[in-house]
Amino acid sequence: MMIDGLQCGHFDRAAFESLGRAGVAGVVVTCGFWEGAVESLDSLGRWRDLIRENADIAGIATTPSEITGLANEGKLAVILGYQNSNLFEGRIRFVELFAELGVRVVQLTYNNQNELGSSCYEAEDGGLARFGREVILEMNRAGMLVDCSHVGNRTTLDAIEASDKPIAVTHANAQSLFDHKRNKSDDVIRALGETGGVIGCATYRNITGDDYCKTVEAWCGMLARTVEIGGVDTVAIGTDRSHNFTAPDYAWMRQGRWTRGVDYGAASAARPGKAPPPEWFQDVEDMRVIPDGLRAVGFSEEEVDKITHKNWMRLYEATFRKPKIEVN
Amino acid sequence: MMIDGLQCGHFDRAAFESLGRAGVAGVVVTCGFWEGAVESLDSLGRWRDLIRENADIAGIATTPSEITGLANEGKLAVILGYQNSNLFEGRIRFVELFAELGVRVVQLTYNNQNELGSSCYEAEDGGLARFGREVILEMNRAGMLVDCSHVGNRTTLDAIEASDKPIAVTHANAQSLFDHKRNKSDDVIRALGETGGVIGCATYRNITGDDYCKTVEAWCGMLARTVEIGGVDTVAIGTDRSHNFTAPDYAWMRQGRWTRGVDYGAASAARPGKAPPPEWFQDVEDMRVIPDGLRAVGFSEEEVDKITHKNWMRLYEATFRKPKIEVN
Repeated sequence: MMIDGLQCGHFDRAAFESLGRAGVAGVVVTCGFWEGAVESLDSLGRWRDLIRENADIAGIATTPSEITGLANEGKLAVILGYQNSNLFEGRIRFVELFAELGVRVVQLTYNNQNELGSSCYEAEDGGLARFGREVILEMNRAGMLVDCSHVGNRTTLDAIEASDKPIAVTHANAQSLFDHKRNKSDDVIRALGETGGVIGCATYRNITGDDYCKTVEAWCGMLARTVEIGGVDTVAIGTDRSHNFTAPDYAWMRQGRWTRGVDYGAASAARPGKAPPPEWFQDVEDMRVIPDGLRAVGFSEEEVDKITHKNWMRLYEATFRKPKIEVN
Repeated sequence: MMIDGLQCGHFDRAAFESLGRAGVAGVVVTCGFWEGAVESLDSLGRWRDLIRENADIAGIATTPSEITGLANEGKLAVILGYQNSNLFEGRIRFVELFAELGVRVVQLTYNNQNELGSSCYEAEDGGLARFGREVILEMNRAGMLVDCSHVGNRTTLDAIEASDKPIAVTHANAQSLFDHKRNKSDDVIRALGETGGVIGCATYRNITGDDYCKTVEAWCGMLARTVEIGGVDTVAIGTDRSHNFTAPDYAWMRQGRWTRGVDYGAASAARPGKAPPPEWFQDVEDMRVIPDGLRAVGFSEEEVDKITHKNWMRLYEATFRKPKIEVN
């Protein structure tokens, strides 16, 4: 059993089937990057339709016990997430409304600074802003997991400190292992470890580097070194795998509506388009080799369980809840 | 025990307390008139806060059993409603999302024609439009009650025919008893009766007339004549009472953002502002005289129960549901 802390793109039945064959029991999906409240509701509507159409093989999970329940039926548990906080449109009260609609993971910023804090790509990270602090406490209350994957290191450290609950970096790697703005400092990974947080290690080549993409053992070796930084309770999987992405999707993801220019996100002018997936992870179902890869680099069965799913489940247990928001 | 099919205005603790003293166990409140999706979410956020602040005396009810449960605790059951379908912003998928957020009553149109159908104030009522039919079926599925109080008679008849479930006119009177565009033809009231629908008789002077406002017996006499048209299973209470309304509220309610001119809604140039409440219904708690008024005009105990709450409860039973929309 595996849980993938973040995937994105246009999911379809084939993607759900591939994830099933890969041994993935639960996956956090990306319901939006830049969209405001109305477009985010559109996305939830489309996701509900997609899940209804594939109810024989997938379901939406809003609690760890729903993930387990779906897994026991052999179905993929889809956890609804957003890679930005634009869905809240600056409104603290929208946090509980989107929680009520099943959203469980929200990233404070995507690639740009916003009212909450700073992204990893800004020249200056001024730390968590006033509204960011409010949103984190409201997410704590409403049962949503705070995600800081694209958030700047300083804002991330502030978020860990501000949050009453442990937080996540759902999809990033250690900066000390592969130097990229999108990756996280050892300080961040240690602070996650000290507070019950989790980092999901990515397989996205632009932030993983060619060396760790060559073999599953190399990638699992990267996880072993990440465990040395943050501890075995802190490291999990967050591949950042995308499904059915096309050029307009990359343009939207990177440029949204914020620039008339070109932005490469985690990519570069040298390779602006789709990054080739790791050699060992050409097809989605290839994820099934990860547990054996972890064993090959020396993890025990207990450690393999933590990295593949138990760390995420523990974090979800600590943060997700049905927002039985005392109104009846 | 009474249920009021529609009230509006700015509710506060004093209003909840007054309704308690009036013997009102449940009330459909107006969360919006013209607002789109984002502002409607704002309204839901404010309502949730208001209910949380007054959780000792009120709660949000989304099913008849929750109404009963709150009543048994001596608390007012608030049922969330909108007097317009603008909250959906033309999106069929928003119906189930707002249902999930607890909305249970939505009026197809307010005072103006929209994508769903025609209002009672348009020169020509062309009947239910294509999107109106879709929304009705989606409301049936998602567990929302269709309200046609401000809707034109022809569109209302079409809605009754299109709907798989009985529908409501939550706040209007019989046109044959008081001639006003906002009131409903005998055809509509009979069609409601034949399909299990309900009309909530109003106490709003502009659509009730001075004669029926003089004494509670006169108003209950109007209900007795409405029962002669539609049957005793069809008639209930929908006062249209407003709380803490001020001049800007009337301007918004009538003119919204749709005109630079003046519109009087159900009022008139002769009396553009607040209509004086009925002589017998000066304060909200005066509603408590209604059951005795109904007895005074000859209704049996069983009939009093139907008119004061059982007809609404039967209709809610037939239409409301927790939208356990098969996604997990």
